[in-house]
Amino acid sequence: MQAGIVGLGRMGGNMAARWRDRGHEVVGYSRTSPDRDVDSLEELVGKLAAPRVVWLMLPAGDPTRQALRQLAGLLSPGDVVVEGGNSRFSDDTEHAAVLAEHGIGYVDCGVSGGIWGRENGYAVMCGGADEHVRRVWPLLESLAPEQDGICHAGPVGAGHYVKMVHNGIEYGMMQALAEGYELLEASEYVPDVPKVLASWRHGTVVRSWLLDLLVRALEQDSGLAGLSGRVDDSGEGRWTVEEAVRLAVSAPAMTAALFARFASRKPDAAQLRALAAMRQQFGGHAVHTAPAASGGNG
Amino acid sequence: MQAGIVGLGRMGGNMAARWRDRGHEVVGYSRTSPDRDVDSLEELVGKLAAPRVVWLMLPAGDPTRQALRQLAGLLSPGDVVVEGGNSRFSDDTEHAAVLAEHGIGYVDCGVSGGIWGRENGYAVMCGGADEHVRRVWPLLESLAPEQDGICHAGPVGAGHYVKMVHNGIEYGMMQALAEGYELLEASEYVPDVPKVLASWRHGTVVRSWLLDLLVRALEQDSGLAGLSGRVDDSGEGRWTVEEAVRLAVSAPAMTAALFARFASRKPDAAQLRALAAMRQQFGGHAVHTAPAASGGNG
Amino acid sequence: MQAGIVGLGRMGGNMAARWRDRGHEVVGYSRTSPDRDVDSLEELVGKLAAPRVVWLMLPAGDPTRQALRQLAGLLSPGDVVVEGGNSRFSDDTEHAAVLAEHGIGYVDCGVSGGIWGRENGYAVMCGGADEHVRRVWPLLESLAPEQDGICHAGPVGAGHYVKMVHNGIEYGMMQALAEGYELLEASEYVPDVPKVLASWRHGTVVRSWLLDLLVRALEQDSGLAGLSGRVDDSGEGRWTVEEAVRLAVSAPAMTAALFARFASRKPDAAQLRALAAMRQQFGGHAVHTAPAASGGNG
Amino acid sequence: MQAGIVGLGRMGGNMAARWRDRGHEVVGYSRTSPDRDVDSLEELVGKLAAPRVVWLMLPAGDPTRQALRQLAGLLSPGDVVVEGGNSRFSDDTEHAAVLAEHGIGYVDCGVSGGIWGRENGYAVMCGGADEHVRRVWPLLESLAPEQDGICHAGPVGAGHYVKMVHNGIEYGMMQALAEGYELLEASEYVPDVPKVLASWRHGTVVRSWLLDLLVRALEQDSGLAGLSGRVDDSGEGRWTVEEAVRLAVSAPAMTAALFARFASRKPDAAQLRALAAMRQQFGGHAVHTAPAASGGNG
Repeated sequence: MQAGIVGLGRMGGNMAARWRDRGHEVVGYSRTSPDRDVDSLEELVGKLAAPRVVWLMLPAGDPTRQALRQLAGLLSPGDVVVEGGNSRFSDDTEHAAVLAEHGIGYVDCGVSGGIWGRENGYAVMCGGADEHVRRVWPLLESLAPEQDGICHAGPVGAGHYVKMVHNGIEYGMMQALAEGYELLEASEYVPDVPKVLASWRHGTVVRSWLLDLLVRALEQDSGLAGLSGRVDDSGEGRWTVEEAVRLAVSAPAMTAALFARFASRKPDAAQLRALAAMRQQFGGHAVHTAPAASGGNG
Repeated sequence: MQAGIVGLGRMGGNMAARWRDRGHEVVGYSRTSPDRDVDSLEELVGKLAAPRVVWLMLPAGDPTRQALRQLAGLLSPGDVVVEGGNSRFSDDTEHAAVLAEHGIGYVDCGVSGGIWGRENGYAVMCGGADEHVRRVWPLLESLAPEQDGICHAGPVGAGHYVKMVHNGIEYGMMQALAEGYELLEASEYVPDVPKVLASWRHGTVVRSWLLDLLVRALEQDSGLAGLSGRVDDSGEGRWTVEEAVRLAVSAPAMTAALFARFASRKPDAAQLRALAAMRQQFGGHAVHTAPAASGGNG
Repeated sequence: MQAGIVGLGRMGGNMAARWRDRGHEVVGYSRTSPDRDVDSLEELVGKLAAPRVVWLMLPAGDPTRQALRQLAGLLSPGDVVVEGGNSRFSDDTEHAAVLAEHGIGYVDCGVSGGIWGRENGYAVMCGGADEHVRRVWPLLESLAPEQDGICHAGPVGAGHYVKMVHNGIEYGMMQALAEGYELLEASEYVPDVPKVLASWRHGTVVRSWLLDLLVRALEQDSGLAGLSGRVDDSGEGRWTVEEAVRLAVSAPAMTAALFARFASRKPDAAQLRALAAMRQQFGGHAVHTAPAASGGNG
Repeated sequence: MQAGIVGLGRMGGNMAARWRDRGHEVVGYSRTSPDRDVDSLEELVGKLAAPRVVWLMLPAGDPTRQALRQLAGLLSPGDVVVEGGNSRFSDDTEHAAVLAEHGIGYVDCGVSGGIWGRENGYAVMCGGADEHVRRVWPLLESLAPEQDGICHAGPVGAGHYVKMVHNGIEYGMMQALAEGYELLEASEYVPDVPKVLASWRHGTVVRSWLLDLLVRALEQDSGLAGLSGRVDDSGEGRWTVEEAVRLAVSAPAMTAALFARFASRKPDAAQLRALAAMRQQFGGHAVHTAPAASGGNG
């Protein structure tokens, strides 16, 4: 089928390529990419025959919001916009309402698969009315590794919701694997940790794609010495914890994973200095002083 | 090859069957199983030609310790005992020393795979001297789904150590999946949670054997209504946390998983009543009273 | 000085009484309390001489929002409204803006002290412009146990912000005490746990008002047998975790405290049944079945 | 009364001074301190009249164990040894048995109070037989701030057990305060964090000695700039978590506190690099590289 895509970054560009490989006619627009087919949203809309499908792959927040509002003025009743970026699920209702005023449909779609997706396929989780999802189905089918990898999860917002929870689980699983890796590295029993992890790919309870990736990383750098311990986090991890709080769901593993990343980026966090300060006050405990301060004693 | 196995429970019995399917000659002993081939350890040893291999699949602790000491008196120099049960890695050194006094070798072997192992193969993680592991290698090969599923992890203790960390990771991964499941169930966005989880088996970051099992459980009981929320834990989960403490490794996800299970078995835990008591004291907060106590007010 | 108070529940009623004890002229209004002095907000405003101070002690959310909007139409430029309830700090900016359109000042004020406050005094944390805080200072002084117990923490919102963090700390401290209590109760070493806690009030590192309260509760019910383990939580605990997420601050102790309360209210939580389901699938582990389900087997 | 003390470090030296201030006759021995009164354990025992009391304040583990065994050979039936150091409660039984063979009594005693104890008094938690505790009671009374600060908690081991749980609670409370401190520091609402904390000393729910100490530290260094974020931990914190695991008690706040300290000392922990590695593999996420590695790209 014919589709427009807005946003040709790492994800958008690969998805466009995968669609073209599978016979779709794709018109791509990006403000900055040299791979764009058109130079404006107006031109993009003009190249598509109604009823149109426009797929957004922009950064969440203002860029997505602005493109949506602009498209609301350019598209026609019966067209459908797919928000395939990382919008917070709670923004989708507003997005859909803006478009609905113009008779334009809206589908929110969480896409998972990273840089492997172009070749292996993406998991696709979408939300929206049946008729709108049906309209874009051929695009979903071409993204997914097989038809079972597509999930129409519920009404508008459900796609991003489900993707968010998926990412929260991902955080928790990664943290569990990372803790296990450090235990093996710290132990006097295990001389060759990469060998152990590689063996776990077969027949164990923990076999998983994330384990595969860790094994692969260790094949490239057996001690992970080229990486620093500062780990970023993304919106989905935070939103999952916010949802756990809102819904009164205990989520200690996911939250531990998020907090470990927060802490990784603050080696001299205020809370740690506060702990040191209390220890120094009550116990006369020797504490570690900041380099500058201890230098001052020299 | 020829091997004796002591302990014919769910694990031991299935392993013996898998070995026989693959052409090994297995002599099985168990105090209680009707499937036993011999009626005593003495008879078991008598049926095996030296140099012998005897594989233990008994409950950890006293049963394993007693069988080992008895075998130390019955076996001959050059024989090898494999401890395939769930011994704490720190017991393996002592076990090996007891046998070494009699010239008998020792291999500790963590076996993973549950009830699926007989058909699909077991992951095998062992520790011990090269010569002893080599002696029992054909048995390991017949357990594993493929040769890569066998891991000779290090010296005596390493097999159980690695299996323990594997189980710690398993705890954390299960907890992450369980938290995500509850979020999906609690959300107003997701009408059909089993469908979502089933779709995640394809192309997502969280695809894993544990996800497969959860999907399978939901196929059998879509709301998991037949299960109670009391969840048991095993030694390995606890030992992993103890190791984290000993090695000063932060392991919040694994520990959260263990504590969630502890808490699941104590709906009126002392700590919860202490929280309620403090709230009642400082705030005049309404608190929930125990059924008996509140009944007294009626 | 003269002041109006809206809301005469447990907190508002005690505060009004404390003010009167200290010579203030207080006009109280509540829709439901028999202790009210006037029957409407209009009448309340009519009884106060300009420039007026009106103190709100209503449930957060709609009741507070509605009273504020109504007061915006009734009060005069130069009057000041104090929001002394439990509004989320992020609502204060909006509240202040609504009033500022009418030239009315706004002070947000977190008040801590529970049922003990009337006698012992309340801790008072407020936010707002200096001139507005100065106007209401005599009321703050009469609430506080001593002048040092008043904190003008910053601009509008700061009072509720600081109170929120205070409550987050309270959650963490309570959880730590509760865990310690359960450990002592569970241990075979400690025959008389209340005696131990009582002794800790003198000279220890953990001496604190919360410990005092726990000791007091144990004096009344040495095993806390009259309480159930279902523990409620309040907005502030949740907002603190949300703030930790927003500011990328690792807050594991506070969050653990919140999640322990969530879990306490769901003995058969979906996540626990999911854990049981996975264990049953992979291990053939014996699991606990739901009463109804197991009953069905009988 | 007359007493010997072995170990004249920060704690032992202050305790000896406090006893002397209160009229006790104290003979002090230490291998290294210039303040010692005698030059050997033999001489110490020789200076004391039977029935003797000897109080140990040595590092836990081998130093304590060796001194105990030596004293077992030097003391007489009816003498009592007090282990006032930080032995693990589980060692006390063995210590007591060694001395009991010689008819010598044993009391284990946890002492809390840090550098403030000499002036303000120490909290004293002891375990042992009534007759042995009675023998040393005058020493306990002189340590405590008042008689209620002494706790005879139970049989041998109970003193160290109770002190251990006390320290676990201390960890959790400190962590809660530290998290709150960082939230206040991170927020845009609170310009003067030390002022807020100082105000909390009056009338709040979180008033406590630890809060007092944090306020005091901030008076000396308002941004805690002179301290590094590396925070040590002690045996008691670890043992508390081990006990929680042994007794199946969920203890997330205490454990979070311990893990935060572990993590504080490992800015490039293996687990963090493992997280970065997995992110890099699946997402093509930008990751932070180690200084050396990134330098290699220059």
